[in-house]
Amino acid sequence: MVVKVYGPHCASTKRVLVCLVEKEIEFEVVPVDVFKGQHKDPEYLKLQPFGVVPVIKDGDFTLYESRAIMRYYAEKYRSQGVELLGRTIEERGLVEQWLEVEAHNFHPPAYNLVIHVLFPQLVGATSDPKVIEESETKLVHVLNIYEERLSKSKYLAGDFFSLADISHIPFLDYIVNNMEKGYLIRDRKSVSAWWDDISSRPSWKKVLQLYRVSI
Amino acid sequence: MVVKVYGPHCASTKRVLVCLVEKEIEFEVVPVDVFKGQHKDPEYLKLQPFGVVPVIKDGDFTLYESRAIMRYYAEKYRSQGVELLGRTIEERGLVEQWLEVEAHNFHPPAYNLVIHVLFPQLVGATSDPKVIEESETKLVHVLNIYEERLSKSKYLAGDFFSLADISHIPFLDYIVNNMEKGYLIRDRKSVSAWWDDISSRPSWKKVLQLYRVSI
Repeated sequence: MVVKVYGPHCASTKRVLVCLVEKEIEFEVVPVDVFKGQHKDPEYLKLQPFGVVPVIKDGDFTLYESRAIMRYYAEKYRSQGVELLGRTIEERGLVEQWLEVEAHNFHPPAYNLVIHVLFPQLVGATSDPKVIEESETKLVHVLNIYEERLSKSKYLAGDFFSLADISHIPFLDYIVNNMEKGYLIRDRKSVSAWWDDISSRPSWKKVLQLYRVSI
Repeated sequence: MVVKVYGPHCASTKRVLVCLVEKEIEFEVVPVDVFKGQHKDPEYLKLQPFGVVPVIKDGDFTLYESRAIMRYYAEKYRSQGVELLGRTIEERGLVEQWLEVEAHNFHPPAYNLVIHVLFPQLVGATSDPKVIEESETKLVHVLNIYEERLSKSKYLAGDFFSLADISHIPFLDYIVNNMEKGYLIRDRKSVSAWWDDISSRPSWKKVLQLYRVSI
């Protein structure tokens, strides 16, 4: 069964796509144009009542929330492709910890930077300098903690690549390549080496090649 | 090995404690007084570099982020106590989906209400009426979607109690019992019945009895 992935161009969908490529799972995409408001169409809201992307359909099974979808496929195809949940229950615990850190500490300031730095360039949205400054300060604090962690282990959850690393890629790409904020990464030796490692994986290159066009 | 849980009185720690009680796991608590700033002490930051509660220590293993800790114990003691992850990979997928919905849709407005309604009553913090109004509007939208979901299944992830339900309990308790906002729940028949069900479980009653004192 080919997995249908709704909304390929958004960052959170790219998180899912990288996971599917790493797990060697066949998929097809269903475009949802958020700039045209298609994520608020009644038909789409039947799939995802909160009106955000992504959603997957896999036969009769529907699932939303990008980090939940990643966990589902990493678990379902445990022995296929790259192992993304660690090998032991403790390793998985640490994958879960860093997935949560990504969601609650890294993502909010990174998202605010995208909204207030990148969006105004692309679609003429308004920008609030105070939000930019506060978000960057928060992100610096988070990345300093990452630097300490990544000076001791190659990846966030340990010496193995995992969902916790994948989950960071799309927004790190915006920061480094779309917003002239690359110094946030490059000023930190271990974070910089980690970014070079995870962003050079064939899975991310493939997703970028297919869906670079828009945010 | 007895699990050490740091910071028993905060809402996010209570989430973990309910899980441990449901899984019949022995624990002891290590008080961390956030009102005295103990979560920013250098010794504590060695355990949790972001300076928030909870953290667990289980022998040599340290883990933070409440939802990650819950997942870890629900997985580690799969066959002990109440099954909290569903029985199939698809059921677990839905548990993960609703855990993510709790974290990203329910929690932010519920948290803002606590900060701007409950905290000012307790510790004299300032309150912003605009934030209260916006948060309540967001929460109404989320709870309307929950009402639709819970009119079709007994619990969020399906007809089985899970981590997704547990994760909501502490902040729902604030809303219903500490902030005179109970109408948000009581105005919705299925949400109200769900709340009565999950809040009457012995696990929550035990945690409340032990750690009701403060927020």
